[in-house]
Parts: sequence; C-alpha cells; structure tokens
Amino acid sequence: MRYSKLKSSLADLIKKAKLHVLEADSETVHWGHWDNSLAPVLTVESGDFVFVETITHQAGDAPELMMDETTKEIYRNIPEETRKPGPHLLTGPIEVKGAEPGDMLEVQILDIEPRQPYGSNLSAPWGFLFDKEKYEENEHVMIYELDDHAQWLTQKYKYEYPGAYDVNGRVVGEDEITKEEGPRGMRIPAQLHMGTIGVAPEEDGKISTVPPSNFGGNIDNWRIGADTAMYYPVFNKGALLSLGDAHLAQGDSELNGTGVEASANCLIRVKVRKDFHFTQPLLETEEAWHIHAFNENLDDAAEEASLKAIEFLEEYQGMTEQEAYSFLALAGELQITQVVNTNKGVHVTIPKDAFVPEV
Amino acid sequence: MRYSKLKSSLADLIKKAKLHVLEADSETVHWGHWDNSLAPVLTVESGDFVFVETITHQAGDAPELMMDETTKEIYRNIPEETRKPGPHLLTGPIEVKGAEPGDMLEVQILDIEPRQPYGSNLSAPWGFLFDKEKYEENEHVMIYELDDHAQWLTQKYKYEYPGAYDVNGRVVGEDEITKEEGPRGMRIPAQLHMGTIGVAPEEDGKISTVPPSNFGGNIDNWRIGADTAMYYPVFNKGALLSLGDAHLAQGDSELNGTGVEASANCLIRVKVRKDFHFTQPLLETEEAWHIHAFNENLDDAAEEASLKAIEFLEEYQGMTEQEAYSFLALAGELQITQVVNTNKGVHVTIPKDAFVPEV
Repeated sequence: MRYSKLKSSLADLIKKAKLHVLEADSETVHWGHWDNSLAPVLTVESGDFVFVETITHQAGDAPELMMDETTKEIYRNIPEETRKPGPHLLTGPIEVKGAEPGDMLEVQILDIEPRQPYGSNLSAPWGFLFDKEKYEENEHVMIYELDDHAQWLTQKYKYEYPGAYDVNGRVVGEDEITKEEGPRGMRIPAQLHMGTIGVAPEEDGKISTVPPSNFGGNIDNWRIGADTAMYYPVFNKGALLSLGDAHLAQGDSELNGTGVEASANCLIRVKVRKDFHFTQPLLETEEAWHIHAFNENLDDAAEEASLKAIEFLEEYQGMTEQEAYSFLALAGELQITQVVNTNKGVHVTIPKDAFVPEV
Repeated sequence: MRYSKLKSSLADLIKKAKLHVLEADSETVHWGHWDNSLAPVLTVESGDFVFVETITHQAGDAPELMMDETTKEIYRNIPEETRKPGPHLLTGPIEVKGAEPGDMLEVQILDIEPRQPYGSNLSAPWGFLFDKEKYEENEHVMIYELDDHAQWLTQKYKYEYPGAYDVNGRVVGEDEITKEEGPRGMRIPAQLHMGTIGVAPEEDGKISTVPPSNFGGNIDNWRIGADTAMYYPVFNKGALLSLGDAHLAQGDSELNGTGVEASANCLIRVKVRKDFHFTQPLLETEEAWHIHAFNENLDDAAEEASLKAIEFLEEYQGMTEQEAYSFLALAGELQITQVVNTNKGVHVTIPKDAFVPEV
C-alpha cells in the first residue's frame, strides 16, 4: 500500500524486524471466545512480521475438501463442549511488546492465501431472513470452489444440513447428507479477507466471538484483505491479537449469516502506535478509509459511524465539523458491513482521491 | 446501455417514436407534492423521447449563479404558500398513453446535463445529525462549482443560513449573508443524477415529495444517472411521470440532508411494460440491478430489500430461494441509499457479471 498520513513505513524498524511463524494447532488457537486472560502463544516486538495459520470452524461442512492434518488435530483435541459461546476458531493471542491500554495497534495485512481452494457458505440460524415466514427453518450448506486464478467461486455442491447447526465444528458424515448440484451460470467474485481480527477486549471473561466491537473482532468487512492496514484501540498490556474466520468471498450484509468460510494463511506486520488514537477499528486501503461502528440496529450504528467519521476528518484532514458533514453527504458512503453478527455493522467510506494537492 | 433481459431495445418502436420538448415554466411544474389528480402537462406515446427541463428548489441559495430566466419565472409565479408539503420542484406530470395500473413504466435516462455548473448543498434541519447534541441548531449552505470537464466539484463559498430554512425556494439576499471561503485541498467526485423521478401515487391527495415509496419519487440514489433505466409500478392511468431534484453529486446516505442541488436538463425515453411486474422501483445500470426498499428504519428497509431481491433472482435468474439467499450473501451488496428522507432507503445491488455463459 502507498504511504499515508497514518500507516507506518515499510522501512520503519525494518532492520530490527523479525519474521515469526505461528502455526495453528490445538495449543495455539482458541475456539468461540475472546478472553483477556488467555496466555499469549507468541510474543513479538513492535514492527515484527508474523505468518499466521488460521483454520476455519466450518471445515466439517466438507471434510473431504477442507480438513487437512492441521485441522484434524485441532478438531480432535479441542473438546466440543469448550467451543463456545461463539463459533469462530481464532489463532492467538499474539502479545506485542510495549503495547499499553490507550495505544493503537496497527496491523498491516500483507498477504492472505487460502489453504485449500474450497469454502463453505451456510444459510445459518442467525441469518438475516432465517426466521421470516417465507423460509423453512432448516439450514443449507453450499460448498464453493475457487478457480485456478483465484478470481471466481463456483458451486461445487450443496446439501440440506442434517439436523440443527448447533455444534461448532461438527464434521458432517457422507452418509448423513445428500449432495446436490448447485446453480449453473453463476459465479461469485473472489474477495479473500479475514472476517475476524481483534485485540483482547477490555471486559473480563469469556466473550462470544460473534459481535464485533471497539476491539475489532468479527467485523466481517470484505475489504479487510491483502494490502490493507487495520488500526485497533488497545485495551490490555501486549494488545493480545488473535485472528481467523477467513472468507473467500462475502458481500456487504453477509445476508445468510456466513461468507465462504475457509482456512487461510496470513502474513501480517504489527506495530504499536502511541502517536494517534481513535475509538473505533479503522481500516485503511489503497483508496479509502473506512470507519466502523456497531449496534444492534442499523440506524444507531449509522449515527455512530457518521459522528466518528466527522471526528476523523476534523482530526486528520483539518476540516471543520460543518465542512466534514457536507463532505460526507457528498463524497462519503455510509455502508452496511453486515446484518447478522448480533451487533450489526455500518462503516463510513472516505475516498482518498477527494484530497488533492494544490496545482 | 447494453441490452439486457429487461430493458427495451433502442430499435423497439423507433420508427414511430417522437421527440418531445417539455420546457419548465410555472405551468409545467408542481412544487412540493405528488397528486394523482394533477392534469398532464404533456401526453406521449409509449416509446417516445422527452427532453425535460428541471429546475432546482434551491436556486435561491446562490441566486447570482443558479437563477436563470426560467427559474425566475417559476419562483415569481408560484406562490410560496403553495409550495408544500415537501420542498421539491418537479416537472410534469407526463401522461404515457396506454399505461394502466398494474403495468410497469420503463424510464430510460439517456442523458443529464446541468443547466449551470453550480449547485447548493444545505446542512438541513432534516439532516441525519442535525438534532445531535454535537451540532448547533443552524443551517449551513455550501455552494459548489463543477469543473470544465464535469469531473469534480469544489467549494465556491459557504455561509450560515440567515434564520431557519423554512420557506421552500426562498431567495437569499446578498446583504443577509456572509460568504466565507470553503475548505481547500478537497474535491467531490461529480455524479450527475436525478434525485426524484416517479409516477403518480396510488393514494389520493397532495402527498409530500420527501418520502420515497413504491411509486419512486425522492429515491436519491446517486446511481440514477445517464445511461440507466428505471422501472416503476404504475398506479394510475397514463402513469403520470414527474421528475426533478437533480444533483451534481451525493454519497450513499445524503448525510446532511441534501446533495449538490442543481437545475438540469434530462433526456428520457418512456415505455409502457405489460410483460413483467415488480413491486419496487428497480434501477438497471450497465453493471448491476438495484432493488429499492423504504422504511422509517434501516433494519426494516434492509429486510424488505433483501426479500424483494430474492424474488427478483428467482423470477429473472431462475434461482431457487436458497440459491438466491446464498448468492446475495456473497455477491450482492445491501447498501444504504439515504437516511434523511423520512422513509430511509436501502437497495440491494446485484452485479451482472456474476452471471456467465457456459464456456
């Protein structure tokens, strides 16, 4: 990504930087919860690079395609009854030395690579339309395949889920399901991204991985892909970063409750930032800033995201409040991130090319 | 626009087609209301082209830049007290012969041209953040100028509104305001579009132009620009189409209550469609379909837009309900249209390039 007012330079601390490899196994992941008392599985310096293996919690939907040895070991050794209260399998926490509450943690996402060219999309009980009259109360799974050029996803097969989807990481048996062919003539644009990245929350105890919050977590913004940077407020010493829940694709809304859930390896660089502060998880891409807010209803999330975006423009573009308000009405986009994670998400997109040098 | 499953061919009825010119004057516009009893100001055949002049209701914010002779005549001859209950000045209604309740009216928007390279953005009393503690309770106006290549808008000047913004079409006097320079180093991408196009509503009486509804109206989707087609359900004999409220730019949200409001000439082609029906105003662009829904809160609008998008995919792409639900979660985008028109708007965007021939 180009340099920006916010992002750390690639050269910054580069001679001191180390490359760490964080393999996923039953000792380096946590399943279903955030917990600020979890012991770090890796400790790194600010400026270090980390290669992180992340394993999807939905590998059991198509075990013949999605379960490698790493996945099998994790699923075997983490008891079903401890995978709660949320469904997500996260790798971490990673302690970043020097990070203190009140700092920001910059996470540069340098690359994401799927571990298999397959993923599962579940029409889940928590989907936006699941309890509407129109829908039968049963779960459907669609298995998607990524093409050789990683551009498009097509359906490999689909099936009705046998029983309720209520055990996280359940491995479906071939004899339990009837595979059907999916729709033809239709393809999904691939958008590899990390559904969940976050620092440990301020609140103590085992907290569900489902609702995104100011510590990040299950933001499910498909723009959080390679060549981007995320900035999170830090609430605990060492920040305690975890990530997982990779998606091969997802639209704004994540309407039926999931993306194309997949395992992925991810290369990140972490940096402790004491030079700026912001209350919301902030995404920076090549083209734009995205300011996230979360609430049980979209209207309140939209209001918070708008107010925070105005703060951002005042602080980082030197606009007055009224200038920022007009600017957002005309050049900003107030967008729905997702509507299915208990806390719905809205983000404001601020295009960088609106800001120009004098010529 | 390319041909599509829905859009009428350019060649269709072309030898019979007439080109009409509908000039705006105080006899051919209506201000502030929809009313299905308004007499048509023009009658056309299905397939005809119409050049329509539309005049902004905010020309009085910068009279020296935005009020041409046409505008002055309208503002002079339409009494202030009749400009209600909404603010918008619309040209029409246009009767389209053969249109009956239950039909669809296809409106191809072939071109839009601003009448002046200026527009006004008002931080209005109905803006999304107007009553938030953070904001002073006063209205601000920002006058924008379009560049020679119609690519970008920059601020010409700004001022605090003298008193409350409560008279539609009030012409501000030079001596009432203090013009200030706007922010530098910032530009707004130009997106010429029609904020309001609609057919006469089913409901009788003078209905405010503010809330968009199933008859269209004040949808304020910045994608409704040149080279697109809109499809509206028809509720009255002759459809009775009106349009106006052009914007030089607007983002998804229209956060502070208005776009860059401007006068514009518009070339449309209208076609009565008896071969398909849809309950919502539908926008077709080169790249996508957009299915609109409206509600006082975003969550309910999002739900309706999603359900209607599934219906659309079932009917026009032959998907099953479950396939459509998964498809929308992954390739569709659930987007906020605007949050300031009493009925907030959400639209589902369905990308056309997801549908491919077998190869």
